[in-house]
Amino acid sequence: MTEAVAGGADVSKLRELNSLSIVRAMRGRRPATVTELATRTGLSRPGTDVVVRGLVTDGWVKVVEPDGSSVGRPARRYRFNAGAGHVLGVDVGGHKILVLLADLDGTVLHRHRLPVASDADPAARLEAVDLAITQCLSAAGMRPEEIWAVTVGVTGPVDATGRTTLFTPLPGWASVSPAEHLADRFTCPILVENDCKLAAVAERWQGAAQDADDIVYLLAGMRTGAGLIIDGTLRRGFGGAAGEIGALKAVRWLSAPAHIENCPGVPEDIHPDDKAAWVFERVREGDRDAKAALRRYVKDLAVGAAALVLTLDPQVVVLGGGYSRSADLIIDPLTRELTRLCLRVPEIRASNLGADSVALGALRVALDQIDARLFGDGMPAPLALS
Amino acid sequence: MTEAVAGGADVSKLRELNSLSIVRAMRGRRPATVTELATRTGLSRPGTDVVVRGLVTDGWVKVVEPDGSSVGRPARRYRFNAGAGHVLGVDVGGHKILVLLADLDGTVLHRHRLPVASDADPAARLEAVDLAITQCLSAAGMRPEEIWAVTVGVTGPVDATGRTTLFTPLPGWASVSPAEHLADRFTCPILVENDCKLAAVAERWQGAAQDADDIVYLLAGMRTGAGLIIDGTLRRGFGGAAGEIGALKAVRWLSAPAHIENCPGVPEDIHPDDKAAWVFERVREGDRDAKAALRRYVKDLAVGAAALVLTLDPQVVVLGGGYSRSADLIIDPLTRELTRLCLRVPEIRASNLGADSVALGALRVALDQIDARLFGDGMPAPLALS
Repeated sequence: MTEAVAGGADVSKLRELNSLSIVRAMRGRRPATVTELATRTGLSRPGTDVVVRGLVTDGWVKVVEPDGSSVGRPARRYRFNAGAGHVLGVDVGGHKILVLLADLDGTVLHRHRLPVASDADPAARLEAVDLAITQCLSAAGMRPEEIWAVTVGVTGPVDATGRTTLFTPLPGWASVSPAEHLADRFTCPILVENDCKLAAVAERWQGAAQDADDIVYLLAGMRTGAGLIIDGTLRRGFGGAAGEIGALKAVRWLSAPAHIENCPGVPEDIHPDDKAAWVFERVREGDRDAKAALRRYVKDLAVGAAALVLTLDPQVVVLGGGYSRSADLIIDPLTRELTRLCLRVPEIRASNLGADSVALGALRVALDQIDARLFGDGMPAPLALS
Repeated sequence: MTEAVAGGADVSKLRELNSLSIVRAMRGRRPATVTELATRTGLSRPGTDVVVRGLVTDGWVKVVEPDGSSVGRPARRYRFNAGAGHVLGVDVGGHKILVLLADLDGTVLHRHRLPVASDADPAARLEAVDLAITQCLSAAGMRPEEIWAVTVGVTGPVDATGRTTLFTPLPGWASVSPAEHLADRFTCPILVENDCKLAAVAERWQGAAQDADDIVYLLAGMRTGAGLIIDGTLRRGFGGAAGEIGALKAVRWLSAPAHIENCPGVPEDIHPDDKAAWVFERVREGDRDAKAALRRYVKDLAVGAAALVLTLDPQVVVLGGGYSRSADLIIDPLTRELTRLCLRVPEIRASNLGADSVALGALRVALDQIDARLFGDGMPAPLALS
């Protein structure tokens, strides 16, 4: 670095760094004048002007025309062009594929959801993924080359090769590499990550835990799982298997959902996905069997939750997953159980992201990837299409 | 910062920063010439010379006289003066007080150990702490004012006030503030930290996990506990209670040591501290009862260990505590149990720091405190006594 300052490449390098400073000073903020940007970055006003013009030419920055409301000739304002690039977040679930397409500000522009049979084999599931992506891109009028990063959420711990070889409930899916499959269509980086981990990222980004740095995300539904944010960072674990406390029989997560799903009185002809909603409805009506089922469920859920809380001592536990639509019925008894089992009980909050949380977390991880390339060291910035 | 560069205070600030750069470039390395230090820091040779002379005057740096072995006039060499300041690490245990005194390189210069009755009340235990510190300082010929930082290790999670209010097995100790007590003698910063957390720090600093960033430290002894290092950083948890998985009955740590301590055949007149050694000796002799006791102990230890491993997916588990003197008898069956219970089994290593681990970790935390003041922002460097 020190040597390069004396060399010829130095000035262009400096200009590139200045470009990044200015882009960073613009992102997520209101349109700004050159003078304001010079103040924010500490660069000179003439230097800022040159760099901003270059960024406009390259498509990174848009001119915001004055609205004519001010007296005299108003200074021209500029904003970051969030539409310079796009990312995809893909949730490969047991029952659905959800694809979200967002700009560089993370604003979701298009979404596409396809149902998929829970017993679908890998080929059928990947076909549904392909179709959902095709339809989402088509709705956006976009080609795969215009996507800068893709993140795919899957069920089960994701190893260094992007596979769920250790464990996954998706039939036949253990050795599938979604990244290799999608590499036929996309030339951009493709990341694969565990669904609970992505949901945890989403809760800190846009959900119930935006103010917290130490977060346990609990997936409460037909499956039970967890994602961990410690000191503001998603924790994957040395082999990608952090948060898999549910695999320990002693904490009773494996058997917990059965209390709800097999509650006495559930109609035989009801769709499996609707059983829990039926039970929670009966709880609200005061049904004794449903209330007992919920009580037993929460007692089991609490043992694994207590193991996580006692291990990590988080600030917030976010209750997500399908059952969290009835979080108002779960949070109070869960808090009571944790008070009995733990030394210190964190705040328990309900997720408000619904079924989008995994795909939203995937978007955030894809955007982080781009930010690392833009603002991190050593990697070239992607070319902005103007 | 940008404004200050234009102002008058700027040059002295720059010189101070240069001093820190040079101190940093010297620490933990062999004596160096001014030319070598200029190369390491990127500062000019004349500038480096001025700063190094100033550091010698202030006592931070020592001149290393040439040994006469080289031909011609050898360049003068300089080294960091680790003796410019000192720190104390104090382990307030159930049965002993251990005080270590170290220089700024962390080299232990003096140690003092005092036994203390396990049922000692807080006043008696604090008196033992005071006496152990007095005797350690006296052996070093040092006054309390010459100590730059003190860290005290205690049993139980340490809250924001430096107390173990949530839980501690030390009788009557829950509301004791060791920091407030020691503030009568020391004017330097005094930190209080949980013993297992400090032991974890020690294992990464000088022990069995120097190469790892994701570490679970297991205290295996008459008590069972844990300390967590994630991504190279000690994790305290939001309320200081991280690692307290042992409080969860389902993971069986509360009852685990009883298998060893109450093993059939243990002589009635044996000292409680020596029971485990007696049992492990019988295991080596092939005694059936002792082997069964060990098997049951490891089975229980493994449940809590599996909860930690499944939650965090660490690279290494370090087995410490009193029982780890017989780690060779524990590691194999523990690995087998974890293989049965976990998705991915980390490497399990025996601690090699013995009974010093808590006090050593306390030294490291005290040194980190000083480093943060030296190299961190906003705090004045302590005055070096030349």
